[in-house]
Amino acid sequence: MKLNDLQPTQWTLARRAERMNPSVIREILKVTERPGIISFAGGLPSPKTFPVSEFRAACEKVLRDDGPAALQYAASEGYAPLREMVAAMLPWKVDASQVLITTGSQQGLDLVAKVLIDADSRILVETPTYLGALQAFTPMEPQVVSVASDAEGVDVEDLAAKAVGASPARFLYVLPNFQNPTGRTMSEARRASLSARSMEIGLPLIEDNPYGDLWFDAPPPLPLTARNPEGCVYLGSFSKVLAPGLRLGFIVAPKALYPKLLQAKQAADLHSPGFNQRMVAEVMKDGFLDRHVPTIRALYKSQRDAMLAALQREMQGLDVQWNTPDGGMFLWAKLPQGMDAVALLPKAVDRGVAFVPGAAFYAGEGDPRTVRLSFVTATCEQIDQGIAALAAAIREASTVQPAR
Amino acid sequence: MKLNDLQPTQWTLARRAERMNPSVIREILKVTERPGIISFAGGLPSPKTFPVSEFRAACEKVLRDDGPAALQYAASEGYAPLREMVAAMLPWKVDASQVLITTGSQQGLDLVAKVLIDADSRILVETPTYLGALQAFTPMEPQVVSVASDAEGVDVEDLAAKAVGASPARFLYVLPNFQNPTGRTMSEARRASLSARSMEIGLPLIEDNPYGDLWFDAPPPLPLTARNPEGCVYLGSFSKVLAPGLRLGFIVAPKALYPKLLQAKQAADLHSPGFNQRMVAEVMKDGFLDRHVPTIRALYKSQRDAMLAALQREMQGLDVQWNTPDGGMFLWAKLPQGMDAVALLPKAVDRGVAFVPGAAFYAGEGDPRTVRLSFVTATCEQIDQGIAALAAAIREASTVQPAR
Repeated sequence: MKLNDLQPTQWTLARRAERMNPSVIREILKVTERPGIISFAGGLPSPKTFPVSEFRAACEKVLRDDGPAALQYAASEGYAPLREMVAAMLPWKVDASQVLITTGSQQGLDLVAKVLIDADSRILVETPTYLGALQAFTPMEPQVVSVASDAEGVDVEDLAAKAVGASPARFLYVLPNFQNPTGRTMSEARRASLSARSMEIGLPLIEDNPYGDLWFDAPPPLPLTARNPEGCVYLGSFSKVLAPGLRLGFIVAPKALYPKLLQAKQAADLHSPGFNQRMVAEVMKDGFLDRHVPTIRALYKSQRDAMLAALQREMQGLDVQWNTPDGGMFLWAKLPQGMDAVALLPKAVDRGVAFVPGAAFYAGEGDPRTVRLSFVTATCEQIDQGIAALAAAIREASTVQPAR
Repeated sequence: MKLNDLQPTQWTLARRAERMNPSVIREILKVTERPGIISFAGGLPSPKTFPVSEFRAACEKVLRDDGPAALQYAASEGYAPLREMVAAMLPWKVDASQVLITTGSQQGLDLVAKVLIDADSRILVETPTYLGALQAFTPMEPQVVSVASDAEGVDVEDLAAKAVGASPARFLYVLPNFQNPTGRTMSEARRASLSARSMEIGLPLIEDNPYGDLWFDAPPPLPLTARNPEGCVYLGSFSKVLAPGLRLGFIVAPKALYPKLLQAKQAADLHSPGFNQRMVAEVMKDGFLDRHVPTIRALYKSQRDAMLAALQREMQGLDVQWNTPDGGMFLWAKLPQGMDAVALLPKAVDRGVAFVPGAAFYAGEGDPRTVRLSFVTATCEQIDQGIAALAAAIREASTVQPAR
C-alpha cells in the first residue's frame, strides 16, 4: 500500500456540531485583550474582589492537613461539608442531599440540557437571555422559544401560551436577579405570578442565580425555587462571590431529577476538583462570605454609579437609553434609532472601548440597537474615559449616517 | 386557586436519561469505603504518589505572584504555558494550538461524544472497554459495537468488517496502553496493522492514554496518533502522573475537529480551572515529571509483583487465570468455570476484599467470569491479605456449587 492509496480520514461531525458556534463574547474578548482597550464587554468580576490571601491560607491548610484526600478521586456529588454549607446558606429549606457541586454553573446548564432536552424539544427562554445558557442547550438540539419580556422579566401570559400545546415546553430557563445581559430584576409581584402560573400548568423552571448576592441597596425577592422546590432546578455559583478561576458552582435539584443529573455529572467529568472544593469550604467556614460579599456589593455599586453618572454626562443630546440595575454586573443600553451595535463596535474599539452587542443574547432575532455594558471590570476612572469614548463613537456614527 | 388545584410539575426526561445508569464502579466503591475492606475495586492512584509538597510550593507561588490572573476567568483552550508543555512532552510533533486542556480526560470523552456522535451513530469499542467511555458516549445515543479483541487489543479484520457499510462507524475508541480494565497493551505489530487498516478505510481513532507513562520495564510502542495525527484524537491526563483531584487532562485534536471541540468545551464549563492549570504548570516546569514518574513506576511494579506472587500462592488448585500487565494499574483475572463474579462479590466483601466484576466493562454481554483487580491502591501487605481472602471466597463458592 502506497501512501497515496490512503483515504483521508472520514471525520463525520454530529449534526449538533453544525449548530455550535464560537462564543461571540469570547471572540470579542480576544480583541479587547489588546493593551489600552477599556472593556465593558466581558463579564469578568473585578480581581480586587478575589480573596487571594484567604485562598493562600486555605491552600496551605488543605494540603498540610488533608493533602492526599484533597488530591484523590472523590464523590461525584461533591465534597460533603461544602454541600452542607450550600444547603445552609440558601433562603429555603434545602437538604445537602439535593446539592450537586458542578464545575462552574455553566456545567449545571450542560447537565440540565442533557437530562431534559431531546432533539426538537421546546424550551422557553427570556428575551433576551444568557448567551452561555443558549450555548449549553444548543448541542441537545432544542427548539428555543423566546418569551416576551419587559423590564421585570417574562410576560406570564405569553409564557403560559407558549408553554402548553401538543409538545409542551420542557422548561423555562430564567435568571431573575440582575440578569445577564440586561441587569434587570424580576419584581416580587412578577415572581408570585410566574410561580403560580407555572405551578398551575405544571411547567418546570430552571432558575439561574449567579448574581443574586450582588445586590446594592436591598436583597432581591425570594427565589422562584423557594416557592416550589419540587418544580424547579436552582443553579448557583461561587464565581461571583469568591473567584471564577476555581470553576465551582452548584445545582439544587428535586428528588425527581437528582439521580439523573448525578449520572450525567459522572459521565461529564467524574467530579469537580476536590482540591478546589476543600479550598472553598475552608475559606467559607466561619461566615467569611457574610464579611466579604458586602465589600463586593459596595465596590460594584460605586462602579455602577460611576457608569450611570458618565452616561448622564456623556450621552447628552444623543438618543441613547439605559437602565439602572439594582445589583449584579451589567447595564443594558439602547443606541440611537437606526444604529447597529455590531457596526458600532469596531469604531468604538478604534477609540479604545469595547462592549458586547446585545443581539448576541437573543434566541431569535435580536434588537440591533441594544448593548451590554459591564461596569465591574473597569475602574471608575476607566469607566469615565470609556463612556466618553463610546459617546464619541456614537456621535460620529450618528453624523455619518446618510440623510433620510 | 387552591393548592390542590395545582398539577405536579411535569418533569419530562430526555430519552437519553433513560440510558444513563449509576456507575457500577462508583456504587461498588461506596461499599468498599467501609472500614477494613481491602479494595482492588477502584482505579484510585496510590496517594503516596501525590507530590503534596510540590503542590504546596506551587500554590503558594501561583497565588503570590499571579493570584488575580489565576483566579479570573480564562481562555477555553487552556493556560498557554501548560498547552506548550503538553505539546513538548508528546512523542510526535504537536503544536500547542492543537492542545485543548480538559476537566479530566473524562471531559475529553464527553466532548468527543458531543462533536462526533448523532443518535444511532455506530461507534466501535474494544472488548472489553473502559466503562467511563461508555458512560460518556451513551448520552449521545450511539449504537455501540464491540470489536473482537485478544490479549493484544482489537482484531483488525473484525474492526474493518464492522467499520464500513451503509452507516460507517464514526470512530474506534481504543486504549492501547495498560488498558482499563484488562491491563493489556497493544503490540507494535498490532498498532502498525491497526493504523494502516484504519487509514486505508478512513476510520477515525479516539486514542485514550491515561496510563501510558506508567510502564514497568520498557515504554510501550508509539501511540497510534503519532502514526496519523490528522486521523486521530488523542486524550491524555495528569491524574495518574500528578493527582486526579485537580481534574486536569487534555485533548490533542486535528485541525478538522479542534474548533468544534473548543466550542463544545466552552458550552460545557467555559474553561478548566485556571488556578489548577497554573499549579500543574508550575510543578511540571524544570522536568519534574522526569524525576517523579519513575518513582510511581517502581511503586506500581512492586505492587503488581506482590499481586502476581499472591495469586500464584493463593489460587493454587483453583481454576483461576490472570494476565501479567506491563504497566498501569489493573490486572484481569478469570474465575473458575461456571462462577459469576457478580455473585462472588458480596461473599468476597464479607471476607473483607472487593473487586469489580468484569462484565461491567463490556458494551454487549460481558463474560461473567472476569474480574478487574487494581494493584495500586492497596499496600503490598494488603494485597497479600486481600488475595488470600479472595481465594477463600472463590474456594467456598466452588464447593457450594451444586454437583453436576
